[in-house]
Amino acid sequence: MAGGGAAASALSSPWRSLLQRALDGNAHLKHSTFFQLATVGGGGGRPANRTVVFRGFQEQSDKIQINTDARSNKIGEIRNCPFGEICWYFTDTWEQFRISGFIDVIDGSSPDPVKLQLRERAWFGSSVKSRLQYLGPCPGLPIPNDDLVKDVHIDPSAGPVDAFCLLVLDPEKPSLCMDKTPSDAYCR
Amino acid sequence: MAGGGAAASALSSPWRSLLQRALDGNAHLKHSTFFQLATVGGGGGRPANRTVVFRGFQEQSDKIQINTDARSNKIGEIRNCPFGEICWYFTDTWEQFRISGFIDVIDGSSPDPVKLQLRERAWFGSSVKSRLQYLGPCPGLPIPNDDLVKDVHIDPSAGPVDAFCLLVLDPEKPSLCMDKTPSDAYCR
Repeated sequence: MAGGGAAASALSSPWRSLLQRALDGNAHLKHSTFFQLATVGGGGGRPANRTVVFRGFQEQSDKIQINTDARSNKIGEIRNCPFGEICWYFTDTWEQFRISGFIDVIDGSSPDPVKLQLRERAWFGSSVKSRLQYLGPCPGLPIPNDDLVKDVHIDPSAGPVDAFCLLVLDPEKPSLCMDKTPSDAYCR
Repeated sequence: MAGGGAAASALSSPWRSLLQRALDGNAHLKHSTFFQLATVGGGGGRPANRTVVFRGFQEQSDKIQINTDARSNKIGEIRNCPFGEICWYFTDTWEQFRISGFIDVIDGSSPDPVKLQLRERAWFGSSVKSRLQYLGPCPGLPIPNDDLVKDVHIDPSAGPVDAFCLLVLDPEKPSLCMDKTPSDAYCR
């Protein structure tokens, strides 16, 4: 995974070391790389929350990468209010990391060649099966069965499709919070 | 747990039946009753997100109960913007429930005797160990060791302490969303 252990040890953020330790300690669990991302949605600025997958740290930084579909509701939400809070709960060690920060939305229309390169790297860093999802129906719609995805083919050497979008959350260190949960009392 | 299987079967909401099935199917996992609650916090209406514990459904309703500390940041946040979105991810079955709705904050100052009774019931429905947390230091502060909690004693027959607060989220059915995750593409 991009920006894994070696990169972590090269950086000095205490929270990053703790997070890396939690990732290592829970690596046997597939879901250890899943976390919940809260944003402020439509409907009068109400909160929105969903599970996403950690796609590594951006190289030489503490920025957290998430792949998503440019057609998903969260893109509009983030463009309207570019902040998010990750709640990352490790079920075996009962550790919770809350990481808030600015979110950069990088889709194919970005004018910045460096950002486009990051997006391309994230695309090729995903499995071919994962890339197929971006050729499927609009996210949020029910998927009747797997046949829809099975019937779609993709050239493994082809670059990112329009629907592929990279989110990059830049942690604001002062608001980081590491808790031992569950505890009704100690959750902010 | 209050409002468990029997109550669920008496109600007809399709999402409630699906949720109950997920709870039953994941009951062997301690963390199956944990979910992430997003609210809109201070700092210019930014999102906030934390893990909380499902404390059952309110009797004869689909309302979701959460115990919390009246001193936690989320109380002020919810008073300011009384909406939340739960993201409840079941790690074994890869099912995600997103449940948004209005949140009612019920602390000891509520003028409504029915609500106060609900709060009292939630208090006595918690373990004595769980109640002790509300006599501890302010939430969000580091806990150096368990001695602080060990030194606190509580009369098991005594009613709720000031810091004990019940949150009741009233699901807005149209915004409910059940996804199979993880899928970068299909997370709204």
